[in-house]
Amino acid sequence: MSKGRTLKLGAFMRPISIHTGAWRFPGAVPDANFNLEELIRSIKKLEAAKFDAFFMADHLAVLNMPIEALRRSHTVTSFEPFTLLSALAMVTERIGLIATASTTFDEPFHIARRFASLDHISQGRAGWNIVTTSNPDAALNFGRDDHMDHGERYRRAREFYDVVTGLWDSFADDAFIRDAASGLYFDPDRLHRLDHRGEFLSVRGPLHIARPVQGWPVIVQAGASEPGRQLAAETAELVFCAPGTIAGARSYYADVKGRMEKIGRDPEHMKILPGAFVVTADSVEEAREKHLLLDSLVHEESAIASLSIALGTDVSGFDLDGPLPEIPDSNASKSGRAQTIALARREGLTVRQLARRLGGYAGLSFVGTAKTIADEMEEWLETRASDGFNVMFPWLPGGLDAFVDKVVPELRRRGLFRREYEGRTLRENLGLPRPANRFFP
Amino acid sequence: MSKGRTLKLGAFMRPISIHTGAWRFPGAVPDANFNLEELIRSIKKLEAAKFDAFFMADHLAVLNMPIEALRRSHTVTSFEPFTLLSALAMVTERIGLIATASTTFDEPFHIARRFASLDHISQGRAGWNIVTTSNPDAALNFGRDDHMDHGERYRRAREFYDVVTGLWDSFADDAFIRDAASGLYFDPDRLHRLDHRGEFLSVRGPLHIARPVQGWPVIVQAGASEPGRQLAAETAELVFCAPGTIAGARSYYADVKGRMEKIGRDPEHMKILPGAFVVTADSVEEAREKHLLLDSLVHEESAIASLSIALGTDVSGFDLDGPLPEIPDSNASKSGRAQTIALARREGLTVRQLARRLGGYAGLSFVGTAKTIADEMEEWLETRASDGFNVMFPWLPGGLDAFVDKVVPELRRRGLFRREYEGRTLRENLGLPRPANRFFP
Ligand SMILES: Cc1cc2nc3c(=O)[nH]c(=O)nc-3n(C[C@H](O)[C@H](O)[C@H](O)COP(=O)(O)O)c2cc1C
Ligand SMILES: Cc1cc2nc3c(=O)[nH]c(=O)nc-3n(C[C@H](O)[C@H](O)[C@H](O)COP(=O)(O)O)c2cc1C
Repeated sequence: MSKGRTLKLGAFMRPISIHTGAWRFPGAVPDANFNLEELIRSIKKLEAAKFDAFFMADHLAVLNMPIEALRRSHTVTSFEPFTLLSALAMVTERIGLIATASTTFDEPFHIARRFASLDHISQGRAGWNIVTTSNPDAALNFGRDDHMDHGERYRRAREFYDVVTGLWDSFADDAFIRDAASGLYFDPDRLHRLDHRGEFLSVRGPLHIARPVQGWPVIVQAGASEPGRQLAAETAELVFCAPGTIAGARSYYADVKGRMEKIGRDPEHMKILPGAFVVTADSVEEAREKHLLLDSLVHEESAIASLSIALGTDVSGFDLDGPLPEIPDSNASKSGRAQTIALARREGLTVRQLARRLGGYAGLSFVGTAKTIADEMEEWLETRASDGFNVMFPWLPGGLDAFVDKVVPELRRRGLFRREYEGRTLRENLGLPRPANRFFP
Repeated sequence: MSKGRTLKLGAFMRPISIHTGAWRFPGAVPDANFNLEELIRSIKKLEAAKFDAFFMADHLAVLNMPIEALRRSHTVTSFEPFTLLSALAMVTERIGLIATASTTFDEPFHIARRFASLDHISQGRAGWNIVTTSNPDAALNFGRDDHMDHGERYRRAREFYDVVTGLWDSFADDAFIRDAASGLYFDPDRLHRLDHRGEFLSVRGPLHIARPVQGWPVIVQAGASEPGRQLAAETAELVFCAPGTIAGARSYYADVKGRMEKIGRDPEHMKILPGAFVVTADSVEEAREKHLLLDSLVHEESAIASLSIALGTDVSGFDLDGPLPEIPDSNASKSGRAQTIALARREGLTVRQLARRLGGYAGLSFVGTAKTIADEMEEWLETRASDGFNVMFPWLPGGLDAFVDKVVPELRRRGLFRREYEGRTLRENLGLPRPANRFFP
């Protein structure tokens, strides 16, 4: 039984599945990632299940993989996050709407304005996933030959956050009087001009939209590096992470929440949600079979390339239907290689199966029944490996429906997940405080 | 009776009224400009009346007026165009959705993507009003001290248009195969990488969204200068303009359509719609009274400042309740001054009334009954002063409702306006061809 804390659940929905075989699964809607009706059906189902948020990752280039892999990808055509989330705001009432936006390839004035507008349109359900954009190909779509270096990207991100939140605070919450008799629309003493001049940005302000309903949309972060963790500790209220193991997750959790305490933030004011790929069925055996079937839909070309990269060794000469042979040391990422080898041994996968897993999704996965999945989620929650999950569905609609129809009721039976939304805004549902206006406290 | 051509009608809806007194009018919804429910009611009413499009102007700074005027402005808090239009797309089915976006302060990759997304979400109803942003204060919100000069802005705009349309053409219309059996999501031979390198922009591409439903969203332009007219002739399919007189409008019309013919474009492939401020009532007298009442709601501070600017003379010492005295010559815009003086003489306005007109809206206005307004619109259409109008309403909801309920039926009785939408997309309703893909003709 729960000791009182309950899970927060986000739905990772752009792409609709992180798994490259998703669109080929028997019964899947092949164009679900770009099908407005299917996305509406999904978000309504997620809202009925009381999910905290619908999360859209975002990328600003697609040619970072060879065309042989790209032509098999269902994510190559996607809606732009703000236009999609605003549309989805009109068919939902409570679920949060989280958009990813880059601090490297956009302007703080545009970003502040767009999130404020989405927050007003959705009546307080917007969240901003701050990314610095790791894909170096994005630079080529924005007039730059080289990607800004990692440290510089994070320094700009920090300043960008200060400017955006400062712009959101342009008007006091009570600035708008709209007194038709006197003709005063707003009280000019309740308007602040930012006049920011910093290392990367200079922005006068004010923003020409009222302060967001939530004060600030919920701040989300997904950086894993040292500066990424520090940015999260200083700014984030929701963190999406991709831990390899539960032990790794616990140490990440302790590290980031410890950093928060060091700078005087209440650790309860951040919810850490690892991405979790979930395959649900009525027996563990059936779930595993579905998972293997899904992996088998990853094309061999993409699969072999992914495994070679993960191991730092060309595997194309290996016996694909035999077990993984001993792998010599290399200069490639040691932790990635060790994890991949451990995965093969643990599940007894052939080289071909392992390659397909890597070409599909090799991160944290819960594959089993409502009971086994709830057991794992409960362990993560109770051992402070996480505050919930950003659930990744294997395909639409079946993979999402199975989780919602089977796992959610089991979590609820255990008292681990809400029966009703606690509040009206994303912030209220996540148990986060509404930030004071820094200029009109 | 109409000789066959019919009017195209846009609704100028950001701000919901160009008139600064709009929000104070008796019976007006004071926050209509920032009230989602009121905007939804309005767009549904406009769609039921078969308007071609809902048009959002856009500005990237608000401090270009003194705070004494700003604090009386109902436009100081507004939704961002894409988030609003996407939301409105969900409550409508046929009306066009035109957003203004700046070529000076945004990136072509973002703009192309956002319009493509809006066009898919609305099933072919998006339009892009290309502006170079005339407000120099905008630069201060985007890290620049000075505004780019006028000629340079227009050269960048032309290149920007080429890049955006090139990005829209990234995928052939039939690129997406989604063959689950073979695993091919799209045909790589039907994907084009732009690889643009020009004077202002370098963008690799491709865009990661399918070609818009309309091929390209409808291209709209509102520039008035020499380079503005040329850009319109080369690119625009819809033009919003602000002529002072019907004679001026005819010569603008002939000029821009003549430029089109010179470069081999069919002049029918552009619709020219002047902005027209419309006050409708059951008698001309009543309409004039409403207009004067509306003007009287402009605060005197804003009014006097506006008139002084228009005349190039400080008018604060004038007898406000007397007629306009003789005005000495000055260096200020001569055509603006002459127009303002002519307006005072024509309508017999006092200095105060004239000042309030200037502080409200002094451009093309039709003030009268359904019959007199239809007469004027018919004359404009038939003498090729325009192909229709971008209608500016004096306040919401009454000013919009009066036009829709009274003028639209009168136009229809005369055969001057549609009874049903001709097609499903904005392009089809405007009678514009769908552009071929330049890379996959
Ligand atoms: C669950 C999750 C979601 C992410 N979503 C995005 C995204 O949408 N766009 C993006 O550019 N990066 C995304 N990232 C990458 C992170 O922003 C970050 O670049 C990555 O975790 C590496 O961390 P670092 O940049 O601190 O080295 C995501 C990462 C995780 C773990
Ligand atoms: C009806 C109409 C609507 C306009 N809307 C906008 C707008 O939304 N944003 C903007 O920056 N400029 C807008 N403009 C200004 C034009 O883009 C242009 O700057 C102006 O007409 C002056 O022309 P020029 O730039 O060619 O000198 C509009 C102009 C007209 C006539």
